[in-house]
Amino acid sequence: MSDAPSTMVPRLERGSVDLTSIETDAAPGFDGKKADGKAALAAMGEELADLQERLFADRSTGGTRRILLVLQGMDTSGKGGTLRHTVGLMDPQGIKITSFKAPTDEERSHDFLWRIERALPQAGYIGVFDRSHYEDVLIARVRELAPAEEIERRYGAINDFEARLVGEGTTVLKCMLHISADEQKARLLERLDDPAKHWKYNPGDLDERALWPAYRDAYEIALERTNTDVAPWRVIPADKKWFRNLAIGDLLLQTLRGFGLGWPVADFDVAAERKRLAEEKPVT
Amino acid sequence: MSDAPSTMVPRLERGSVDLTSIETDAAPGFDGKKADGKAALAAMGEELADLQERLFADRSTGGTRRILLVLQGMDTSGKGGTLRHTVGLMDPQGIKITSFKAPTDEERSHDFLWRIERALPQAGYIGVFDRSHYEDVLIARVRELAPAEEIERRYGAINDFEARLVGEGTTVLKCMLHISADEQKARLLERLDDPAKHWKYNPGDLDERALWPAYRDAYEIALERTNTDVAPWRVIPADKKWFRNLAIGDLLLQTLRGFGLGWPVADFDVAAERKRLAEEKPVT
Repeated sequence: MSDAPSTMVPRLERGSVDLTSIETDAAPGFDGKKADGKAALAAMGEELADLQERLFADRSTGGTRRILLVLQGMDTSGKGGTLRHTVGLMDPQGIKITSFKAPTDEERSHDFLWRIERALPQAGYIGVFDRSHYEDVLIARVRELAPAEEIERRYGAINDFEARLVGEGTTVLKCMLHISADEQKARLLERLDDPAKHWKYNPGDLDERALWPAYRDAYEIALERTNTDVAPWRVIPADKKWFRNLAIGDLLLQTLRGFGLGWPVADFDVAAERKRLAEEKPVT
Repeated sequence: MSDAPSTMVPRLERGSVDLTSIETDAAPGFDGKKADGKAALAAMGEELADLQERLFADRSTGGTRRILLVLQGMDTSGKGGTLRHTVGLMDPQGIKITSFKAPTDEERSHDFLWRIERALPQAGYIGVFDRSHYEDVLIARVRELAPAEEIERRYGAINDFEARLVGEGTTVLKCMLHISADEQKARLLERLDDPAKHWKYNPGDLDERALWPAYRDAYEIALERTNTDVAPWRVIPADKKWFRNLAIGDLLLQTLRGFGLGWPVADFDVAAERKRLAEEKPVT
């Protein structure tokens, strides 16, 4: 779409998706090494914070804009690291993070979008989903957690839902953190080798890993069917953690820049307020 | 209480409270200037992050510990700055911030603690309240938003409520950000002088300011009556923004250290998992 911001990782082209053709260890749009990438991310901090505050301020005068950053990817693809290193650059006051786990009994008793609705960011906020409604067409498809016709229905439901969010003022940024199976293996071994990381490891992770091709298929179908003009996908090469963090920082920065927000104009008489304060009676 | 961590700003002593006797521009327990204070805060970052991750990990094996940091203070006392500079040092995944505004109609139709209950942190999290249930004995008292006997009832209700939270595994850290009326005046003038800060200013702020002595009284009563052994208050000198940020960082750090948490021990056979991974069939 013509108004999509220009970013290191452009939106996925419409049409069929072949994830094996997309490099996992690339660093597109960035001409530097790891140390340069980390420095470039750190250098974004100030402008990100300034633009985020403008977004937050905008709501005070009735602005409806907000951002929803959706992070999807296989285990160990770096959703948590993105939250820590990139989302963590911003003011936590204006951030709303939701980590979606296996649905509870109550959540399962509702439509799959019910718990998603409840986690949406208000105007002025940057919402971040660590996993999302896409699990309902990913693990749900691979593990047959719902009837085939229900899974089928969900793609359209997601597109309708996201179009509604966009209509309400939400910029929906969908990122698939794309790692190779070899990189996942290395990261799982790292977790096993470090007692401080054992808590992140679950033997079930290897059962999921054995289904890698089925997950890839499910991702390709989901990416293809929900890669809409109003809410496009980006596939972020994520074998290099520093590039993943930088590319998502860049996406947030370009998006916020694109809003072109100034500061709200005072709806009171600034000079009169200054005078009131100067002439006040002693307050203590 | 003997097990309270030793911090720059110790817990308020039990008994009657005279806020005019507590300095607002002091930097107790820190022998340095602004630049040193900022450096000391930054230097805490790594240990804070490590300890916060241990707290988060602890929940994965059934740990119930969590922290609730309550920030109260007059307008401009720096609740937002504390969130940005101190809370922002930690991993946003493990933080749950709630900013309490004037209650909505729905909130008003329930007991004053109803909306507070809904905002409590889960095990493993650090919850932060930007304003809190204390507004219901502060502005509510000054502005007579509830009958006198209801206000009177609330002090005991708060103590019972907080004791229950402590019983559930919550460490309740209550901080009053203590600024002088002169410092508030300077900060309000700054907001008026900077168009990027006009959105933070509201003419009603001066009406509240005119009630400074009534608010001081209400704070003194609240501090005195809810300064319990299990959930004590701290009055943080807050005229120096850097000291305020540092003192609260220090409080979080000492509290987390006091938990003495290690890493959860694996409940699976690490060697067997490493072997499974080494011997897996190719996954792609």
